[in-house]
Amino acid sequence: MTPLGTTLWAVPGGRVPLDRTGREPEFTSFDKLSVLNAGDADAHLELAIFHPGRDPVGPYKLTVAARRCRQVRVNDLIEPEAVPLAEDYSVVVRSDVPVVVQFTRQDTSRAANALCGAVAFAAGRS
Amino acid sequence: MTPLGTTLWAVPGGRVPLDRTGREPEFTSFDKLSVLNAGDADAHLELAIFHPGRDPVGPYKLTVAARRCRQVRVNDLIEPEAVPLAEDYSVVVRSDVPVVVQFTRQDTSRAANALCGAVAFAAGRS
Amino acid sequence: MTPLGTTLWAVPGGRVPLDRTGREPEFTSFDKLSVLNAGDADAHLELAIFHPGRDPVGPYKLTVAARRCRQVRVNDLIEPEAVPLAEDYSVVVRSDVPVVVQFTRQDTSRAANALCGAVAFAAGRS
Amino acid sequence: MTPLGTTLWAVPGGRVPLDRTGREPEFTSFDKLSVLNAGDADAHLELAIFHPGRDPVGPYKLTVAARRCRQVRVNDLIEPEAVPLAEDYSVVVRSDVPVVVQFTRQDTSRAANALCGAVAFAAGRS
Repeated sequence: MTPLGTTLWAVPGGRVPLDRTGREPEFTSFDKLSVLNAGDADAHLELAIFHPGRDPVGPYKLTVAARRCRQVRVNDLIEPEAVPLAEDYSVVVRSDVPVVVQFTRQDTSRAANALCGAVAFAAGRS
Repeated sequence: MTPLGTTLWAVPGGRVPLDRTGREPEFTSFDKLSVLNAGDADAHLELAIFHPGRDPVGPYKLTVAARRCRQVRVNDLIEPEAVPLAEDYSVVVRSDVPVVVQFTRQDTSRAANALCGAVAFAAGRS
Repeated sequence: MTPLGTTLWAVPGGRVPLDRTGREPEFTSFDKLSVLNAGDADAHLELAIFHPGRDPVGPYKLTVAARRCRQVRVNDLIEPEAVPLAEDYSVVVRSDVPVVVQFTRQDTSRAANALCGAVAFAAGRS
Repeated sequence: MTPLGTTLWAVPGGRVPLDRTGREPEFTSFDKLSVLNAGDADAHLELAIFHPGRDPVGPYKLTVAARRCRQVRVNDLIEPEAVPLAEDYSVVVRSDVPVVVQFTRQDTSRAANALCGAVAFAAGRS
């Protein structure tokens, strides 16, 4: 299959909800990035987390194998530093081969699930 | 009407919720693809389901008649094999004529409906 | 202000929820189209509603005045015929001047509000 | 980092929910704009709020520092005038340098959180 997507993605509106209700792990609150690598080469991703009051942090490195999808909770990004909960952030994803990126939030802080999601902004084919 | 849309679509963030609450069939949990074929020729679609740990599965074949819309629950895709519940997946849709694809999730696992939806990523006009 | 947007929009995944809970009119279930006409000329819109099992119906005619926004509940589209509740549909919007179209669903059928929304698919600049 | 995004964005479907339930400030109802400025120059934004029955109001001025993100609740836009609650509006964002804009609504009016979000319509690269 030919590669599909682009190599630069942005999600401005990140904020991992602090609270949760319900059993783990299904009903944890999270922000999630879903990455599809439909191509025949592994994708090496570098994420940068932007903050309101300090310089961006990164790179957070991820690999998505060829012809695989991978969903990553932002809560689980801890190297070079954990993404703070309940604080605004933006994330920029760069990949060495084309991928497609989607963002989803599950907020279980109030005894029901709330979901929101969107395909990330396809910023370019750099 | 002239054809509208494109022929290659991707949704990275699939995951059919396992649990449900409430009466069937309205309040089942599901991932759904909505396809609009506004053109004058039938659209023959081939879906590929990508997984985190194995090769993609497909093609799942669907036809959307000319000047019709069709909404398909991912839960109902069973040939060549059922899409596993509560597991991450991505889906790529190829059509022989231009269509428009939207993705919606309804999660009823916790006694309220949660919805999220987005127009899929329009990957190309191949 | 110069016109902003495009003249052809599509929303594949329509379905007006049948049930509602809570007080009227805030907590009615609805599908809604939000149209922004940032330009200096009135926008004359023609909507076509596509169905799974019969030919598309339309045009539904709407005007959005220059430098105004307008939000229209699909539930309120009754001429040439009401859009059936709890049935799948797609909608195509054509405008004689550029506009921006967004789709939102509010589902109050289960004692909580569920929302989903997306900017519609910008199909062309015809 | 090279600038990322574009300079003109539109969100047609604004409406700040009137009611709220739950503790402040986490569970306030709000419409929020999330702006990412990944570039090396400060971004000076001018927002215009469009209304259904009167001329647009603005500019609302915001600065997003270089290499920073900023999330702004529409509820907090008060100069030149507060955005009315529970009334339809659209918002157009112009920036002097490229940014990425996302829109999120949190509706807590009924004892659960409802979220919806979408990347705004990237209207141009002017």
